[in-house]
Amino acid sequence: MYKFSHFKSIHSKSIFLICFLSLVFGAQAKVIDVSAHGISPGKDITFELQQLIKSVSNEENVTLVFPKGQYDFYPDNAIEKYRYVANHDNGLKRMGFGLFNSRKLTIDGSGSTFMFHGRMVPFTVESGQNITLKNFTIDFIRPFHAELTVVKSNKVNKTFQVKVDKQNAPYKIQDNRLFFDRFGQLDPTGSNIVFNPKTRSPIFNTYDYGLPWLTLHAKLVGDDIVELSNIGNRLPPPKDSVLIVYGNNPTSRLVPGIHITNSKDVKIDNVSVLAAGGMALIVERTENIHVNKFTVSSADGRLVATRADATHFIGCKGEIIVENSLMEHMLDDGINVHGAYVNIDAYLGDNKFIASISHFQQMGLIFGEVGDRIAILSRETVLPFFESSITAIEVLNDKRFVVTLADTPDNLPNVPMSLENLTWQPNLTFRNNMVMENRARGALVTTKGKVLIENNYFNNQMHGILIEGDNKSWYESGAVEDVIIRNNTFVNTGFSGKPHYPLFVSPMLTSEQRIGEGYYHKNVQFIDNNIRSFNGLLVHSKSVDGLIVSGNTLTFSDDYPTIKDYPSVDINYSNNVQLIGNTAKRFNWTLATKMSNDSKAIQIKGNDGFKQ
Amino acid sequence: MYKFSHFKSIHSKSIFLICFLSLVFGAQAKVIDVSAHGISPGKDITFELQQLIKSVSNEENVTLVFPKGQYDFYPDNAIEKYRYVANHDNGLKRMGFGLFNSRKLTIDGSGSTFMFHGRMVPFTVESGQNITLKNFTIDFIRPFHAELTVVKSNKVNKTFQVKVDKQNAPYKIQDNRLFFDRFGQLDPTGSNIVFNPKTRSPIFNTYDYGLPWLTLHAKLVGDDIVELSNIGNRLPPPKDSVLIVYGNNPTSRLVPGIHITNSKDVKIDNVSVLAAGGMALIVERTENIHVNKFTVSSADGRLVATRADATHFIGCKGEIIVENSLMEHMLDDGINVHGAYVNIDAYLGDNKFIASISHFQQMGLIFGEVGDRIAILSRETVLPFFESSITAIEVLNDKRFVVTLADTPDNLPNVPMSLENLTWQPNLTFRNNMVMENRARGALVTTKGKVLIENNYFNNQMHGILIEGDNKSWYESGAVEDVIIRNNTFVNTGFSGKPHYPLFVSPMLTSEQRIGEGYYHKNVQFIDNNIRSFNGLLVHSKSVDGLIVSGNTLTFSDDYPTIKDYPSVDINYSNNVQLIGNTAKRFNWTLATKMSNDSKAIQIKGNDGFKQ
Repeated sequence: MYKFSHFKSIHSKSIFLICFLSLVFGAQAKVIDVSAHGISPGKDITFELQQLIKSVSNEENVTLVFPKGQYDFYPDNAIEKYRYVANHDNGLKRMGFGLFNSRKLTIDGSGSTFMFHGRMVPFTVESGQNITLKNFTIDFIRPFHAELTVVKSNKVNKTFQVKVDKQNAPYKIQDNRLFFDRFGQLDPTGSNIVFNPKTRSPIFNTYDYGLPWLTLHAKLVGDDIVELSNIGNRLPPPKDSVLIVYGNNPTSRLVPGIHITNSKDVKIDNVSVLAAGGMALIVERTENIHVNKFTVSSADGRLVATRADATHFIGCKGEIIVENSLMEHMLDDGINVHGAYVNIDAYLGDNKFIASISHFQQMGLIFGEVGDRIAILSRETVLPFFESSITAIEVLNDKRFVVTLADTPDNLPNVPMSLENLTWQPNLTFRNNMVMENRARGALVTTKGKVLIENNYFNNQMHGILIEGDNKSWYESGAVEDVIIRNNTFVNTGFSGKPHYPLFVSPMLTSEQRIGEGYYHKNVQFIDNNIRSFNGLLVHSKSVDGLIVSGNTLTFSDDYPTIKDYPSVDINYSNNVQLIGNTAKRFNWTLATKMSNDSKAIQIKGNDGFKQ
Repeated sequence: MYKFSHFKSIHSKSIFLICFLSLVFGAQAKVIDVSAHGISPGKDITFELQQLIKSVSNEENVTLVFPKGQYDFYPDNAIEKYRYVANHDNGLKRMGFGLFNSRKLTIDGSGSTFMFHGRMVPFTVESGQNITLKNFTIDFIRPFHAELTVVKSNKVNKTFQVKVDKQNAPYKIQDNRLFFDRFGQLDPTGSNIVFNPKTRSPIFNTYDYGLPWLTLHAKLVGDDIVELSNIGNRLPPPKDSVLIVYGNNPTSRLVPGIHITNSKDVKIDNVSVLAAGGMALIVERTENIHVNKFTVSSADGRLVATRADATHFIGCKGEIIVENSLMEHMLDDGINVHGAYVNIDAYLGDNKFIASISHFQQMGLIFGEVGDRIAILSRETVLPFFESSITAIEVLNDKRFVVTLADTPDNLPNVPMSLENLTWQPNLTFRNNMVMENRARGALVTTKGKVLIENNYFNNQMHGILIEGDNKSWYESGAVEDVIIRNNTFVNTGFSGKPHYPLFVSPMLTSEQRIGEGYYHKNVQFIDNNIRSFNGLLVHSKSVDGLIVSGNTLTFSDDYPTIKDYPSVDINYSNNVQLIGNTAKRFNWTLATKMSNDSKAIQIKGNDGFKQ
């Protein structure tokens, strides 16, 4: 069905082309110019848009085209559901675009801005197939953090004064404490980090300034000038730096930019996210997603973009492709791809287990469904010892579920145990991206699928690429089996000032957890990367079988104070390690390499500028 | 299908009888002894019970019989849903009995106690038909309030000291403030009232002691002895009185005892509720409910029962019958029957309105469904001016919905408007009950159905029977049309010390709201009641057309300090009022009657002991 009558002349050409192509290639395609449905720039479109989405909810192959402009969204008439959002705070969420069970749906913004005026999730895609989101920018009228410029800093008194921009950060001082009104929610000062406005990045040695928010005192001392004191053993941030404060869980990650879950074949193309009260993009249990030309950056007049990661993928499968994207100024990692370890609480007999989700920000996660392959692991060694598949699963509450397996070991060992989903382990291609000027890491990857990370630019406060996995803190599963990291550029990795490496491969273990008989990670190649570095760090490994670090070039940088404290190469309990043909240039010291005694089959040759 | 093999011998006689009767009267009846399903006293039965409920969820005519004992419920394995609960705080709720879409289901406790060990809703009945709950007691291991015995009281310093029972009220002092740990939730001291342990009731003149919880200071001064100070212009409670503190919204009414909604033909028989973090019984949008021998009372060793009302009915229809019940020691009203006024926010044309729920504890309420008759009212006068019916309704979020009416007035008046549901207006029979020793009122009634309140015993801190309705604060709708209140006993009504009457009939109006051309309430009879009174109060009316107050006997009581400050009869803007044959005995003053100039058609005769 074609509704030519709806087309506005300004877009008629391109829309005509789309229609023509649809006519040729897919008989059912329907292109809708939203302006024919009471949706126009400069007013609250929330209600009309939801009515339009509803009216096509039973149709396939629909494109909603927004003529270019700024479209406004207010929460008053927004649809709402209680939503579990992994790595966020669950809750009753109002939504701008609420796309449920859609098939072959495209949202084309034509370069528009979708401006949000309240605590809403801009995009929710739930149980969709063949969904394309393209050509738009998401922004909020106020960010989910406050940017406080330091106007006075007194190291002796350990006090400092900040100027509050009350338009962007309406505030209130109560009982000597500083609160911010974020769309009706009064947030305490909470998590914080200091940015350097010249580098538009977290300041060097950020940890020195990490403020103890629970005891921090605030006092109004001038026209929107607030004096902060009682900072404990931390330093007052320097004058002209900018203190960023951003609330606390469970109320500081309520609003991601785009939430995609239980979906298949999703494409995000030429989309920007300038603010979000959570991650820019969080994807759960989705098969095949292609992210192209995705931008996460701060809006004009702001230093910081989103409250958390640029992109995050949990429990996905198929192909994750993220390319040609810019991710900067967010308050957490560029990308994180992982699964979830869940805890076995009790064995009920008959292959039936009571299990529970481990991390408080994964509550409500779908761990698995009938047919999924799973591993049973020791929670001590985090190594798997049995594989089976799910024959039944029953969710009891947001934490606990009952899972029935096809079979169980004859003698279940008497150790704490976990489960991991082996079916939902995606491949990842991450290429031609820039991840920079952010708090935390460039990329975190824990998936058993094939991983290719190439031609990216990383400039991050902590590790460039962290391959971790843990069953103690974040419960992020997916010991890797095949990772190639090549031809990337790493600039000033670890400007936190701590031993943060371009590549850090190691599970995080508790003091109760021990390295088992095997190795956790396998087959990691880090080759032909260019590293511009003030600290000379290259790679840190632990519990890796098969690590190739070759052809990398490190060049000294004086962008930050020189740090010589840590070994450039730090190999721990690893097997089959090759360190070949790496070059260190312009360092005025020889880079140290350190190999633990329990590491085996290490081949080192042709490295220039490194000390054995 | 009969499963005789499941029966335990101890109950075999009565169960045999049930089966025999089932055999005779209903061929499909199935009686299940829960002990055959791993459910036995003295352990957590939450999981096994839920499995059993699930296994019969598609069957009709099932009775679950619990052999007498104490059954324990823990939240860990409880099922959970996000639940809207009217007059409570919405949220993700874990449930003991989660009964969804059941048909002809009976839960028979055989006199058992269901003991809850965490923040769970004991019973949820959603979309059920022919549901019977009988023969059990609901209790929690710790109540949802703290009872703090005053061990020292200093009127000069305005400080007092309380002994905290840390078993029943685990506490924490932080930043000079007293918090209570209620099943993992840290509640501030919050709402409070002082009880007199001798009367087991709120203390006389309770308002004198209402503590300003926001500024209250706390200090540990001895072995679980806490000194409280900074009480503003209030008095310290007297020595040996008991300060009850019970949190604040939106976290203090999360857990009602029994929640019934969207159901039909429900029976609650011989059920007790000794504690709940909300009301004992809240019923929403249910047709026909019979409550018999319901007990709300405090457990041994506690003064207070539930955090809020004993029973509460919102937006019901058909017959509500509450009889032979005891309701005492709760922190709010005995019964409240009402509807909800919702706000008209915008007219969209085509008989379509955007409307919103008005009260923050009604969010998520089902205002109406297709076919329901509604009235459009002025929000200024709270009088209706148009009737229609709902042809479509679409919920946008917990507050707003779009409602389409069959027709709309030709000229919608340019005043603020509300909607009321006229279809869901139940009849109420409230008889042979005792409502006593509680904070707040005995009964609140606003329904257009037939109301009969007879043979009850009321002994309440505020009004005995309040017929109110308001569109400003609680948004409780249902101007009455036919109310008979007869042969009740009212003892010491209004021991708050304020002008609280056995019968108070008046809408609550804002200063912006005016009495319109008509009257709000109609046809209220208050006859042949016995009133034992220290304040000589009988009736207060406003905006009532048709009020008969006759045959009532007031007898002076010296149980409380005498109060002579208020007129016994206080008639305001009312029409067709009869005050006939009432008698006041043993008062040492003549009771005053006051009639406003704008009242009409007043007949006064044969009253003894009253001044005209």
